[in-house]
Amino acid sequence: MKYFISALLLLAAALPANALIKTRAVEYKDGDVVLQGWGAWEDGFKDSRPGILVVHEWTGHGPYARRRAEQLAKLGFTAFAVDMYGKGVYAKDHEEAGKLAGAFFADRAMMRKRALAGLEQLRKLPFVDQSKLGAIGYCFGGTTVLELARAGADLKGVASFHGILTSPMPAAERPKAAILVLHGADDANVNPGVPGFIEEMRKVNADWQFVQYGGAVHSFTVPEAGTDTAKGMAYNKEADKRSWEAMHSFFDSLFSGGFGK
Amino acid sequence: MKYFISALLLLAAALPANALIKTRAVEYKDGDVVLQGWGAWEDGFKDSRPGILVVHEWTGHGPYARRRAEQLAKLGFTAFAVDMYGKGVYAKDHEEAGKLAGAFFADRAMMRKRALAGLEQLRKLPFVDQSKLGAIGYCFGGTTVLELARAGADLKGVASFHGILTSPMPAAERPKAAILVLHGADDANVNPGVPGFIEEMRKVNADWQFVQYGGAVHSFTVPEAGTDTAKGMAYNKEADKRSWEAMHSFFDSLFSGGFGK
Repeated sequence: MKYFISALLLLAAALPANALIKTRAVEYKDGDVVLQGWGAWEDGFKDSRPGILVVHEWTGHGPYARRRAEQLAKLGFTAFAVDMYGKGVYAKDHEEAGKLAGAFFADRAMMRKRALAGLEQLRKLPFVDQSKLGAIGYCFGGTTVLELARAGADLKGVASFHGILTSPMPAAERPKAAILVLHGADDANVNPGVPGFIEEMRKVNADWQFVQYGGAVHSFTVPEAGTDTAKGMAYNKEADKRSWEAMHSFFDSLFSGGFGK
Repeated sequence: MKYFISALLLLAAALPANALIKTRAVEYKDGDVVLQGWGAWEDGFKDSRPGILVVHEWTGHGPYARRRAEQLAKLGFTAFAVDMYGKGVYAKDHEEAGKLAGAFFADRAMMRKRALAGLEQLRKLPFVDQSKLGAIGYCFGGTTVLELARAGADLKGVASFHGILTSPMPAAERPKAAILVLHGADDANVNPGVPGFIEEMRKVNADWQFVQYGGAVHSFTVPEAGTDTAKGMAYNKEADKRSWEAMHSFFDSLFSGGFGK
């Protein structure tokens, strides 16, 4: 306890009195496709901070992913909410979201390339420690960050929140990134792929953790999903908080050099 | 971040400058059986602290469980390392451990009663908030804390580290305790019981979380188990640290009133 408090007093002393969260829309390209992401960071530091990429759900880059990026900034990370689909592209309904995401689910090379373009933008944000990068993603975005790990991206860790786990391009070797899967135990979209994913992780001796939240279904971190679990997508407040804390602890450990090197 | 730091500064201010961990051997009885457990707490508080019961591995009450109780005391909990077998009973080898534990595995009513006798001793230690109690256990002890949950014990939460999960007396209703299972993904002792356990949790709508650590086998928190996973029991430093942090976060959330009420 004493060590813990001492470390935190040091941390408190290192913080400026009026730390501010700053945000910035960032326009960039992947090939000819114009994209617009969103950076968020706590301003006023002289040192560098770990950077985390945030990959949106199947609807596209929007308020949800930006809110998560700001939450990460408040925890002391510099975050970049990537845009996978194109500037201003945001699905108006599930049908459109399915089409947009479907193109990437069917083309994992494109999914990886588009996410890596976002990672380059994260690297350019203020205060980013280039040696301490990670990625998180939600649903479609969870799948995307797992693809980054499979691609051998230079990340310390990736965390998937209710992402689809399987891939037609499974990992061929141990990923550089430690992998944290945050899964709703009753997520019927994801459950069929769980055994195959675990087998994939075992084969390549990945550094992986898999957390199941009892009673949680797909989209358990998304308040807008409502609370009717019978629909297969629903918010679960406890699972949301617990998975966020698990993600935070995961990156704190990875970035402090404790694990996963 | 600012809120977090403020909360911690408050906490730091509430701590005495020279907080000390105190320990005490406690002799007590369950029926005619004389038992000796071990209390550990941080001294010098005027307020009360959450209490956590620690249930030992199959070898019996010994240095390992006492060390975990002291670790909990350093985190600010008052802890009691229970004695399930009898004062001074400690297995000299796996054969003896198997016999000692086997009697309890075969008699879950006795397992529950013996653990509840320890819980009464926890309640009598200094600074214990009677409304904020939990239990953790290792291997045999993990099974024991799950039995406490099934028995409806008045605990906020229980955490099992590589415990055997199944029971001939499954929960008949939703346990009062939130349940956290910390499991080695390659634990051949525990794996066969995983699907049945999850089904049991679903049936009674328990508040449950299940964490799998890739590459970890049985006894992954026990340094004395060595590192040869081929033996089926081995220490895994990352899984040890990660599971300890998960347990800490679990109880912090439960005791702060955030979840599980």
